[in-house]
Amino acid sequence: MTANQRGADGHRLDRRDVLVGGLSALGGLAAGAAGGMGVARSGAAPAPAATGEGPTTVQLAEHQRRAFHGEHQLGIMDPPQAHGVWVAMDLVPGADVTTLQRLMRIWTQDIAQLMAGQAPYADFEPEMTATTASLTVTVGIGPRVLGLRGVTAPRPAWLGPLPAFPKIDRLEPHWSGGDLLLQICADSPITVSHAQWVLTKEARTIATVRWVQRGFRQGHGVTNPGETMRNLFGQVDGTVNPVRGQDDAVVWCGSSAPRWLQGGTTMVLRRIAMNLETWEEADPLTRDTSLGRRQTDGSPLTGRAETDAPDLAATNGLGLPVIDEFSHVRRAMPDAKGLADRFLRRPYNYDDPPAPGRLTNAGLLFVAYQAELEQFLAVQRRLAEADLLNTWTTPIGSAVFAIPRGCREGEVLAQDLWA
Amino acid sequence: MTANQRGADGHRLDRRDVLVGGLSALGGLAAGAAGGMGVARSGAAPAPAATGEGPTTVQLAEHQRRAFHGEHQLGIMDPPQAHGVWVAMDLVPGADVTTLQRLMRIWTQDIAQLMAGQAPYADFEPEMTATTASLTVTVGIGPRVLGLRGVTAPRPAWLGPLPAFPKIDRLEPHWSGGDLLLQICADSPITVSHAQWVLTKEARTIATVRWVQRGFRQGHGVTNPGETMRNLFGQVDGTVNPVRGQDDAVVWCGSSAPRWLQGGTTMVLRRIAMNLETWEEADPLTRDTSLGRRQTDGSPLTGRAETDAPDLAATNGLGLPVIDEFSHVRRAMPDAKGLADRFLRRPYNYDDPPAPGRLTNAGLLFVAYQAELEQFLAVQRRLAEADLLNTWTTPIGSAVFAIPRGCREGEVLAQDLWA
Ligand code: HEM
Ligand code: HEM
Repeated sequence: MTANQRGADGHRLDRRDVLVGGLSALGGLAAGAAGGMGVARSGAAPAPAATGEGPTTVQLAEHQRRAFHGEHQLGIMDPPQAHGVWVAMDLVPGADVTTLQRLMRIWTQDIAQLMAGQAPYADFEPEMTATTASLTVTVGIGPRVLGLRGVTAPRPAWLGPLPAFPKIDRLEPHWSGGDLLLQICADSPITVSHAQWVLTKEARTIATVRWVQRGFRQGHGVTNPGETMRNLFGQVDGTVNPVRGQDDAVVWCGSSAPRWLQGGTTMVLRRIAMNLETWEEADPLTRDTSLGRRQTDGSPLTGRAETDAPDLAATNGLGLPVIDEFSHVRRAMPDAKGLADRFLRRPYNYDDPPAPGRLTNAGLLFVAYQAELEQFLAVQRRLAEADLLNTWTTPIGSAVFAIPRGCREGEVLAQDLWA
Repeated sequence: MTANQRGADGHRLDRRDVLVGGLSALGGLAAGAAGGMGVARSGAAPAPAATGEGPTTVQLAEHQRRAFHGEHQLGIMDPPQAHGVWVAMDLVPGADVTTLQRLMRIWTQDIAQLMAGQAPYADFEPEMTATTASLTVTVGIGPRVLGLRGVTAPRPAWLGPLPAFPKIDRLEPHWSGGDLLLQICADSPITVSHAQWVLTKEARTIATVRWVQRGFRQGHGVTNPGETMRNLFGQVDGTVNPVRGQDDAVVWCGSSAPRWLQGGTTMVLRRIAMNLETWEEADPLTRDTSLGRRQTDGSPLTGRAETDAPDLAATNGLGLPVIDEFSHVRRAMPDAKGLADRFLRRPYNYDDPPAPGRLTNAGLLFVAYQAELEQFLAVQRRLAEADLLNTWTTPIGSAVFAIPRGCREGEVLAQDLWA
């Protein structure tokens, strides 16, 4: 079998150039990408036209596309798509800043293209790229990257494993840690899979896959627009959350952060098992008490509508608080008016095949973003100390990543790390 | 903690009645279900109203619902939904026809309710049931059921593992076989998970989970209506398929079948790994030759549009067939005009976490329905013998189920097995 591909311009491109020698070629290209993407990137024409053989169809709907270039990376404060995958990769032994630069150049270029519905150079199923389905790809940096030879930025003290929470944690190493993170979200699971394949295979000489976690929210277009998702306990999950435009300072690092993080954020991914088998034994009153909100419609126990603010001072006939002292919502709510303990949640459900003899294996990919990790930790410490919901939930994975700021055209993700 | 639940009619129902003593109660109820569902089934009112506490919201969109009662089970010739899970269960040791009857009564009743957006008796997250998202649940019968004490129908000769295909098969026992099958499909993955949980937990004293396989097609509403799915090789997959109304005899068992299967069908689930890592090394020409159709738009190599019929007689300048002798499509196409080797394909993609050191773990849940298993086998034998696509695909799981006919109101799924 030959290994040739006909580009839209009629040139035959040797794929092995891309696969084997391609890293530096791509790196070079991307480095000069601001101006000239014309020549060797001809394979990057809109997807349906890219393979040049047979009749081409461009009848595909113009699906929702999110813009890659900007102050911030996407997949964070923009509306969560129906499907997501989190891929942690480890750099190969001996990796240095050059390795990192190459990978970041490739990913920057190719994420921009995938999000625009254009097939990257190493994408051999360009037709799949046409269905963007609101694709976003978010890149994160793990602790070990800051120790690479040639990386000039110092490692922030918080960038490492979370402190242990022995009362609740049952962490499994194969769901934890990682040098690099790809978060890939879209409204079609096929779009997620395709982007995952393109981006991980491009990295394969530089990094190995450490873990992969797939999750889902409500099916695209299946519930009313704006309706809050339910998690697999059946709870309305996502009511209180920072709002884009209004609460940006909760999420994005400001001028006190190192330069490579200004406009970026910090991310925590906790894989939290939810025990459906014991949850089922809790009656509605127990459930609602543990949360502080009603499962029926998400309203606080002191209010009538989902969006009503919980009244923590309200008491019942016996003088006891209506919203229990140890309810999840009371323990999780911000203490202060400021940013000290607020953050953005963007969770996805998982439901994997059960272990032998079990009925379920479900839970939450609990994804949190905050300008400073301490905002998350302040809440996590309170919940680890006491939270009725802990009866049914167990953290089994944990990872922390720094999310660099977004790119302008011609820039490379995380470039301040070596500038 | 108490274990009480307030029904919509104000009665307090002890959940443990349902969970522990409930099987016979439910069985009894369902047996007389044709007429009277009123009394103890009050918990089965439309979901948002079911829990009775706090303000109820019935503002949810009327999502697509498919009708449970009818000549055939759904999830077969009706349009495939975006998400699906296949759950195989094994009956507990000592199970007999009474065990089977109980389970089938519960499932019949509760599948009808879930599909209608009504919470079954043992559904403790009734709010989740409201989002039906075109839910269908299809029940299948495995070989061992026909040998249960008290089952009067004889076991059809074909109901058992497929013959071995040593040239291609690498079957793993944990993806194969099973006494009972639930196929649960919907346009929201949350709806799928919830129905899976309700139906498997109801069965837990009667059957254990053997395997669970989740799959996906294109995200709901993300591509143009009627657009054919692409599988994870990027191929347009699903072009040629029997059409409801027109090709019904291909799928539904006729009067020559045993009574319990008339209006039913036979089902094969093959879990087929697709090696993305070697597929990537195949250039477009190799790919299109192996299939006999173009990856760009699914058109046959002898035609211009996806729906053009392949011309198997066409030759190129060298006198060689344009559609290769060993291409998948030529080998898979029916030999005859009749039903002898035609069947319905309703495949779903899977993309699971890769094994350590690997980049991907993807493939197809290849689901086939046919009036007689031999229709499928005729094609599978040809493909196992020679098919260029086999280079990149490996069957790793295999199971065969009999799908009983549909139910009228008051009937129980598979009831002809003991009648
Ligand atoms: C599987 C585990 C968890 C489940 C099922 C869960 C569920 C919920 C639910 C149903 C709500 C109420 C509705 C809403 O505002 O979204 C909520 C609120 C919240 N949760 Fe969780 N949660 C989990 C873990 C966590 C963790 C680990 C944290 C932080 C460390 C956290 C922090 C919060 C916060 C900050 C709120 C909003 C509180 C407020 O200001 O009203 N949750 N959670
Ligand atoms: C991972 C494995 C497989 C892949 C990727 C695959 C892919 C495809 C594709 C892309 C087509 C052409 C478009 C269409 O008509 O849908 C096709 C057609 C077909 N395939 Fe497969 N297939 C696989 C396994 C099988 C198996 C195991 C069988 C049966 C034993 C089968 C039977 C057929 C049939 C009957 C057709 C239609 C042929 C016609 O009448 O034109 N395929 N397949």
